[in-house]
Amino acid sequence: MNQNYIKPDKWCIIEEGFDKENVKSSESIFSIGNGAMGQRANFEETYSGDTFQGSYIAGVYYPDKTRVGWWKNGYPEYFAKVLNAPNWIGINIKINGEELDIATCKKVSNFRRELNMKEGVYTRSFLAVTSNNMEIEVVVKRFLSLEIDEVGAISYQIKVLNANASLVFEPYLDSGITNEDSNWDDKFWNTTNVSVEENRAFIEAHTMKTEFKTCTFMQASLDYEGATVVGVASEKTDNFVSLKFEQEVEANSTVTLTKFGGYTVTRNHPNDSLKQVAHNKLSEVSEIGFEGLLQKQKEAWAAIWEMSDIVIEGDIKAQQGIRFNIFQLNQTYLGTDSTLNIGPKGFTGEKYGGSTYWDTEAYCIPFYMATKDDKVARKLLKYRYNHLEKAIENARKLGFSNGAALYPMVTMNGEECHNEWEITFEEIHRNGAIAFAIHNYFRYTGDYSYIPEMGLEVLIGISRFWHQRVNLSKDKNKYVMLGVTGPNEYENNVNNNWYTNYLAKWCINYTLTQLDKVKSGYPDDYHRVVGKTKLTDRECEKWKKVANKMYFPYSKEYGVFLQQDGFLDKELVKVDDLPKSERPINQKWSWDRILRSPYIKQADVLQGFYFFEEDFSTEDLERHFDFYEPFTVHESSLSPCVHSIQAAKLGRMEQAYNFYLRTSRLDLDDYNKEVEEGLHITSMAGTWMSIVEGFGGMRVVNDKLSFKPQIPNQWNAYSFKVNFRNRIIKVNVTADCTTFQLIGTKEVSIRVNGKKVELFPDELITV
Amino acid sequence: MNQNYIKPDKWCIIEEGFDKENVKSSESIFSIGNGAMGQRANFEETYSGDTFQGSYIAGVYYPDKTRVGWWKNGYPEYFAKVLNAPNWIGINIKINGEELDIATCKKVSNFRRELNMKEGVYTRSFLAVTSNNMEIEVVVKRFLSLEIDEVGAISYQIKVLNANASLVFEPYLDSGITNEDSNWDDKFWNTTNVSVEENRAFIEAHTMKTEFKTCTFMQASLDYEGATVVGVASEKTDNFVSLKFEQEVEANSTVTLTKFGGYTVTRNHPNDSLKQVAHNKLSEVSEIGFEGLLQKQKEAWAAIWEMSDIVIEGDIKAQQGIRFNIFQLNQTYLGTDSTLNIGPKGFTGEKYGGSTYWDTEAYCIPFYMATKDDKVARKLLKYRYNHLEKAIENARKLGFSNGAALYPMVTMNGEECHNEWEITFEEIHRNGAIAFAIHNYFRYTGDYSYIPEMGLEVLIGISRFWHQRVNLSKDKNKYVMLGVTGPNEYENNVNNNWYTNYLAKWCINYTLTQLDKVKSGYPDDYHRVVGKTKLTDRECEKWKKVANKMYFPYSKEYGVFLQQDGFLDKELVKVDDLPKSERPINQKWSWDRILRSPYIKQADVLQGFYFFEEDFSTEDLERHFDFYEPFTVHESSLSPCVHSIQAAKLGRMEQAYNFYLRTSRLDLDDYNKEVEEGLHITSMAGTWMSIVEGFGGMRVVNDKLSFKPQIPNQWNAYSFKVNFRNRIIKVNVTADCTTFQLIGTKEVSIRVNGKKVELFPDELITV
Repeated sequence: MNQNYIKPDKWCIIEEGFDKENVKSSESIFSIGNGAMGQRANFEETYSGDTFQGSYIAGVYYPDKTRVGWWKNGYPEYFAKVLNAPNWIGINIKINGEELDIATCKKVSNFRRELNMKEGVYTRSFLAVTSNNMEIEVVVKRFLSLEIDEVGAISYQIKVLNANASLVFEPYLDSGITNEDSNWDDKFWNTTNVSVEENRAFIEAHTMKTEFKTCTFMQASLDYEGATVVGVASEKTDNFVSLKFEQEVEANSTVTLTKFGGYTVTRNHPNDSLKQVAHNKLSEVSEIGFEGLLQKQKEAWAAIWEMSDIVIEGDIKAQQGIRFNIFQLNQTYLGTDSTLNIGPKGFTGEKYGGSTYWDTEAYCIPFYMATKDDKVARKLLKYRYNHLEKAIENARKLGFSNGAALYPMVTMNGEECHNEWEITFEEIHRNGAIAFAIHNYFRYTGDYSYIPEMGLEVLIGISRFWHQRVNLSKDKNKYVMLGVTGPNEYENNVNNNWYTNYLAKWCINYTLTQLDKVKSGYPDDYHRVVGKTKLTDRECEKWKKVANKMYFPYSKEYGVFLQQDGFLDKELVKVDDLPKSERPINQKWSWDRILRSPYIKQADVLQGFYFFEEDFSTEDLERHFDFYEPFTVHESSLSPCVHSIQAAKLGRMEQAYNFYLRTSRLDLDDYNKEVEEGLHITSMAGTWMSIVEGFGGMRVVNDKLSFKPQIPNQWNAYSFKVNFRNRIIKVNVTADCTTFQLIGTKEVSIRVNGKKVELFPDELITV
Repeated sequence: MNQNYIKPDKWCIIEEGFDKENVKSSESIFSIGNGAMGQRANFEETYSGDTFQGSYIAGVYYPDKTRVGWWKNGYPEYFAKVLNAPNWIGINIKINGEELDIATCKKVSNFRRELNMKEGVYTRSFLAVTSNNMEIEVVVKRFLSLEIDEVGAISYQIKVLNANASLVFEPYLDSGITNEDSNWDDKFWNTTNVSVEENRAFIEAHTMKTEFKTCTFMQASLDYEGATVVGVASEKTDNFVSLKFEQEVEANSTVTLTKFGGYTVTRNHPNDSLKQVAHNKLSEVSEIGFEGLLQKQKEAWAAIWEMSDIVIEGDIKAQQGIRFNIFQLNQTYLGTDSTLNIGPKGFTGEKYGGSTYWDTEAYCIPFYMATKDDKVARKLLKYRYNHLEKAIENARKLGFSNGAALYPMVTMNGEECHNEWEITFEEIHRNGAIAFAIHNYFRYTGDYSYIPEMGLEVLIGISRFWHQRVNLSKDKNKYVMLGVTGPNEYENNVNNNWYTNYLAKWCINYTLTQLDKVKSGYPDDYHRVVGKTKLTDRECEKWKKVANKMYFPYSKEYGVFLQQDGFLDKELVKVDDLPKSERPINQKWSWDRILRSPYIKQADVLQGFYFFEEDFSTEDLERHFDFYEPFTVHESSLSPCVHSIQAAKLGRMEQAYNFYLRTSRLDLDDYNKEVEEGLHITSMAGTWMSIVEGFGGMRVVNDKLSFKPQIPNQWNAYSFKVNFRNRIIKVNVTADCTTFQLIGTKEVSIRVNGKKVELFPDELITV
């Protein structure tokens, strides 16, 4: 696989020249999605080279049976997998009887992929000399509609250059697909009906076990010389159906196959209506037409960019990086459905099962809060509220009681579906991130209603968990938390991970405060929740005792909180003093060596300093940053962004910039040599935070937005917009000054570098 | 499955009455073996009920591909599995055309299994009414010859009771067998040749990957009314061959099929000779005949019992228990082959892969030293010497260098083949047990030669490992050992497990002492070993520093060494205060709850007090026993024996007796409800230790045997023999006195209750 082959461009991701080595990487990088479905950038026509086929429907998963070496009590029965869904993009093409396959063409030139992020369209074009010596020019445009999100569109143009030719297009649907990543080589899909109706075809299939019913559909038409060619039904098997279009084409003229396709699923429609809804969707898009739908696509993306774009001047790679990150986040999750969430690979691959991790609460929510309507972040919070019963059930399986809730580390439907004991059972800090997101949501949006309506119950379940999870150490006369794994997964089963203990204490105190607030402000909700949860004052007193007597490992010598008990027993050799040949340690070292080393995979103590920065002085931060960062290997995609923000806060802009670059171009430049498997979606929100919170210094302080803008030396200017409580503020930063512009109708006061600044509608303020 | 259905008897294991629920348990309990092969007590004739078929050849294994949820660097590629070998015991029987199958008989009565441990013969008998109303009496005898250990013999007698009948016997060989326990459903055996020669048949097959070539063979003859019936070749397929004997039998007369069978393997013979050797073996046993071979079997077992029997008077269940343990140990390993070892399930099942664990060094060696010739224990030590290079390779894979050796946790051929990181990478105390066994061997046998010849190299590799595995904690100014798992596997990835640290220090000091001794006493060996290992004085100085500055967690409050750092932070609720419904915790609790609990699976600190008791006073032992035993759940078969010995030492005979019963009848009474899977062979040696070291108080002190005999209230007397440096001492203990008898030609002085006692040949001394 190659790295660094993507051409820099402000708005587009571009690959030029055909290299088989790039195919799988480009299939990831050029992925398209619309929140409801997504697909890797596989070729429509046959490709006999190495490829990783993937088309995914949001929320459609399969419970692959857990397979582990040695079973531990409490393991989940299954590991939920995002499913490779039936293929609707395929078009087999024959030119004078010869199958078009660029892996076997005599020559391929001018090969170009372009993902136009501004418009949400993916274009691929090439010249080829086929094995039967036909010279052709191919231009394919594809997009997944934001307007009608169950439909995608393909325009496949062929111009024959050197002679007349007989062309056959066979657009098809195929449900005989497999997953790259499965435990048991099970078949996932059961096809129940395959049908053709004029220029349309349908495959009805359901997933095994989970019984998600789907109708995969397509409609195709061929245009040549202003006339529309009629297709006929072609091949039809148990899990395959195709239409056939034949056309004699004159040299230098162009033929265009237009294909609409997509899925209707029982997540959104009644089972017996799937095919009818598919018909309706096809009729709707037929009426709009390819160009009409494309126009709507551009408009929809323009609206997204209008709010979420970040412009960077003077650094084209940084510009391309941040836009790629924002684009992918929007392709993955648009906030229209509270049963969906943000999988770490989005719709770009299968790894991590397409499931929900704590990434959403810790990294993604700030992005969605600032660039979308409040309702979007609220939907993400509601997702966890909807899973509360399952979180309680999950905790019960592990021996907790009385409504204690442990949210899963990895989930599709609220059930735990990860099976390493050191993660599943012990990486319990995820519970804290879910509580923190509630706080963060209210802090940013000012919308308190979520807490009495839903959040309070979540907080009670979480506080109950922490209360039961600690025990009183007689030796320390403090509450301790034994056997946990912190965010730094290069430590397992440690005692008193500072971050987890701190979160636990914070969660309890926050819950107690919210109980008081809800009691006085929303008495009906309070009584409903207390009645439902059977919470008593006595229980709250016990929580309080735990929070007040929580143990925090601390080193007087270094003046720092210790990541966990015993951290100072390690051999404290800094990362810079390790030979280059030994890195990345997750590839070069055995697991036991990693575990007993001081090396930190991603921010751990510093994650706590990020969440709770108001609890610590800048000097505290500096001391902890200087202590921990030198031991941090940043071998998680979630690591550089937090460090970038903190380096910026400490005025270390060069270091902050380097961390920024690493996070923003992680996939484009394939830093970790694994982009073939899919993109790192959730860490992309961290990239956004690096600019807005890091360089822009944006915070919410006492209900007001606050900024401390800085700019990397490498940049001339950068600008971003944030939606803060229905006021849109545009910020433009240069080395000399920062301008603020309020877009809206009502003034707002913000703080800039500690000073109050009043913004009035559409007035440009320079600071 | 049923528990407690085995009839008490001094010399036999007896089951009476047919219960399908018992079949798999009895297949384990009635297993037979001769050190070279072994088999579960499967029926010879067809059985359509639930059964677990197993026939195993010592040292023949298959590298099943490792399958784990998430791969960790350093995991072995495969998990070695003991292989279910081709079946040679099978005999299909037809009575008037109807297949004999007691699962479908109209009536089965007088069903009886008897494993005669004195003679090494397994007998099964029953009366049955077949579905075609034939009444028959069946008596089957089977044994695996100790005399010719590649052969077993079966005598299958049928008496037809109610009418004349037409009987067909089809003795067969079958290599179309599978393993119950496999990761990938792979086929393990590849059959290359199937042949019949007169009354003999052969299947040549080899294992996949490991390429162990085998010839499975049989010979059969039928006797009726004094005449021998001639068999004919019958069915023959790619992996099956049978002979056929037809006989018209009159009512009330008996027909007997005699079958000899077994395996020749390339572990012992050249590949091209396997079939010829099989012929030779069959000719040899034909000449001796079934009865002759049975006579030799009785003599061979008599010789084993002569040396190893323990007689208990007044407690028939205890008597049966200890003999069952001694019998099974001898069935598993006889000390004839230094490439073999003692798998935790012997030849009785597949679990734990039939591989070698630290059980051998920690538990089995004392038994073999005292009840066999010295050479046997020496073979077990040599086994590890032969694997030294692979142990060095194993350590290298984990990042160690300079010849540091980490012996595998589980192995067949010296390579690690277990794949839980917390065990494979961290349960490194196994290295210490291997060094301790060298010390124990010399201490008991007085044979120093192993150390200069082989042991010293092993000790150097192990000391190098410990030296590299610790690091200097600047915080403690001591050497610490981070990230280990002690013998108590209910703790994972702990820091400074006292037992492991103590072993490491001891290993280094012991190695340094042996280096001095070899240097002065065996200078040639010294120079050879130092040359080979490139050991320098400087390296030894570094080791010494580690040993001298090793850290040991200690509690001043309790006056005890702590199992590991932070042990006192746990919620110290004693096992007796746990509700009965929550035990065994390994079935009732989630893994995370077990890990953060104080509960101890098997002796950990107390294992150190067992190995190194001379380093501690009885008061020390008492304090540690009283501190740790109440937290010990004994959920490992290796736990009760150590506690029994220590309870006896502390004069707590009632407790010692209870621990003894638990260990000695673990399988017979199926304490853990898992005997179906096979027997707990290695812990059986612990049972022997409970009597000899526990009740008998036997130790080696300054080159002399020492005893402090006690007797449980439940017993009238017990006696055992030990071979100590080629002198056999018989000890008989009653409540009133102990008698000692020296069998041999040269006097010896022993110590009894601290006083010197001289023993003279064949003179009975009463103390």
